[in-house]
Amino acid sequence: MTGQRVEMRHGGGGRSMRTLIEEVFARGFADMPFDGIGLGAMDDGAAIRVGDRWLVLTTDSHVIHPVFFPGGDIGRLSVSGTCNDLAMMGATEGIALTCAMIIEEGFPLGELERIQHSMVEACREAGATIVTGDTKVMGRGEIDGIVINTSGIAFASAPIRDSGLRVGDKLIVTGTMGDHGLAVMAARHNLEIDGGELLSDVAPLTTMIRAALSAGNGSIVAMKDPTRGGLASSLGEMASKAGVGIVVYERTIPVSAAARAAGEMIGIDPLQVANEGKAVIGVRAEAAGAVLAALRAHPLGKDAAIIGDAVAERPGSVILDTGYGRRLLVESDGEPLPRIC
Amino acid sequence: MTGQRVEMRHGGGGRSMRTLIEEVFARGFADMPFDGIGLGAMDDGAAIRVGDRWLVLTTDSHVIHPVFFPGGDIGRLSVSGTCNDLAMMGATEGIALTCAMIIEEGFPLGELERIQHSMVEACREAGATIVTGDTKVMGRGEIDGIVINTSGIAFASAPIRDSGLRVGDKLIVTGTMGDHGLAVMAARHNLEIDGGELLSDVAPLTTMIRAALSAGNGSIVAMKDPTRGGLASSLGEMASKAGVGIVVYERTIPVSAAARAAGEMIGIDPLQVANEGKAVIGVRAEAAGAVLAALRAHPLGKDAAIIGDAVAERPGSVILDTGYGRRLLVESDGEPLPRIC
Repeated sequence: MTGQRVEMRHGGGGRSMRTLIEEVFARGFADMPFDGIGLGAMDDGAAIRVGDRWLVLTTDSHVIHPVFFPGGDIGRLSVSGTCNDLAMMGATEGIALTCAMIIEEGFPLGELERIQHSMVEACREAGATIVTGDTKVMGRGEIDGIVINTSGIAFASAPIRDSGLRVGDKLIVTGTMGDHGLAVMAARHNLEIDGGELLSDVAPLTTMIRAALSAGNGSIVAMKDPTRGGLASSLGEMASKAGVGIVVYERTIPVSAAARAAGEMIGIDPLQVANEGKAVIGVRAEAAGAVLAALRAHPLGKDAAIIGDAVAERPGSVILDTGYGRRLLVESDGEPLPRIC
Repeated sequence: MTGQRVEMRHGGGGRSMRTLIEEVFARGFADMPFDGIGLGAMDDGAAIRVGDRWLVLTTDSHVIHPVFFPGGDIGRLSVSGTCNDLAMMGATEGIALTCAMIIEEGFPLGELERIQHSMVEACREAGATIVTGDTKVMGRGEIDGIVINTSGIAFASAPIRDSGLRVGDKLIVTGTMGDHGLAVMAARHNLEIDGGELLSDVAPLTTMIRAALSAGNGSIVAMKDPTRGGLASSLGEMASKAGVGIVVYERTIPVSAAARAAGEMIGIDPLQVANEGKAVIGVRAEAAGAVLAALRAHPLGKDAAIIGDAVAERPGSVILDTGYGRRLLVESDGEPLPRIC
């Protein structure tokens, strides 16, 4: 790749990013010895067997702009994002997080304290604790505001992969799609949205996922949080890794009126943008009802819905049934706007 | 702290940074439940009991400028820095690292690959594996080049604190002081150095520390890697946390001719700048000889030396015995130049 340069699309969560990761990182890091679920799995995190449990380890850097947005801020995002990556691998117990901040010279200390309070509040919701950290300061113009890396560990009785779908499984989403990405975009452009207030959904899903795993009793076989690239990207990865097709029914996919209105104004499909408080869950058909009921009993899951099926046709593809016909739900080449998370 | 702003000194590793961390982060995060060594300890990482071992968790963001410097690059630094934080807490087994990169649009892919090769090489030296990662891209001018967060876990049979000194203990440094910080500064200013080539000492200390812990057989009671703020800052923290005084003998502290020359040209004390491949070790006096021998038998420890004693006088202070008299070795208010690591 000599002579080429990193482009914005390489950070978008779509095809270009996966190519960069696969061709540069995964290839280079691939032959490192590791007994567990490692980088090659390209999952939400790594998992290591410790005694009779699994330790899940994950990392995320948060570069969102603006730092404060409708429904949340970079502090809530950074805790939620990492708790959700852990939860997507089934790890909801004993969450310990790191917090590494890089701050631009001149950043107001009052804003730093607001961000920190949000982190504490999100940790309380998840039952997580920040146990260690790092602070760096860069000069004016060397970094735009603040970025926060949160890495974390938690324990799972058995890790859930994003590759576990089989033909016949049901796909569930835990709520409305596209709120985070569209709320941030609308805020960035000062859009007036019809259809009600549009807020980011940013939240830690730990307690809801714990309830779903318990209700599923081993029948939840794949999970992913549809962040960059949105639902389309997550379903695409799940289909491709499992070698199954996925059919989703458009009328069953929850989208809020405000997100739909914002998506139309901006020209972006709510199924193609980041969520920060939602999960896509693959479950054996016979347990789908029980898992759905457990999700709906949780405040963060009241709009949960079964949206589709894993099928034998068109392995690796996602088909959107619009009610009038069927078309491929094609993954975009990454998030349409940068710094969405 | 409302109305105040973050300043460069807040990232320097000295008093101002500790005040920021203590007053904003540690206070805000302090009442989070945690059964282990957590943020309040202000150590190199956190430690959690898992079965009959301890899991150590640490994080570091690396913002060094320039990205390639004499003796290393940001890739080698990011792996070494995190392995060394783990090693300083006695965790040398089963090292699993995360790698989260934030890259500026336009960054050359060829340089990214060079950085990655350095990470792989440093992992090999430490017996570490990169198991998961994250990639973000920011626009031109939103981030200067590339920053890398590496977080990591490893296991220790018992965690080593930085607070464990008692009166009568010996202080050991594992090699020459100041090479990393002075090499980076000299490179930044294109200085011609007398006294030989000046290279960063950046290296993972894992295998050397494992040998020292084995030779010490429980007698190593405190460790710290003297990064930002250098030896002066690390000794100051060790003295203050343990409530002992520390006397160090200037003639016994190894400083290379090149670092001494560069320090004089730039006007910076080699004892006040960052090292990235050295440790300060506190050891019970009766085991000091055995630990020193184990260090010297390792290629990274050939210049190791006993440099001082923990004493009852002036608890919390570090006294430098110059051979002509004694003066306080005062911690600087942070690294004299930003982005040194």
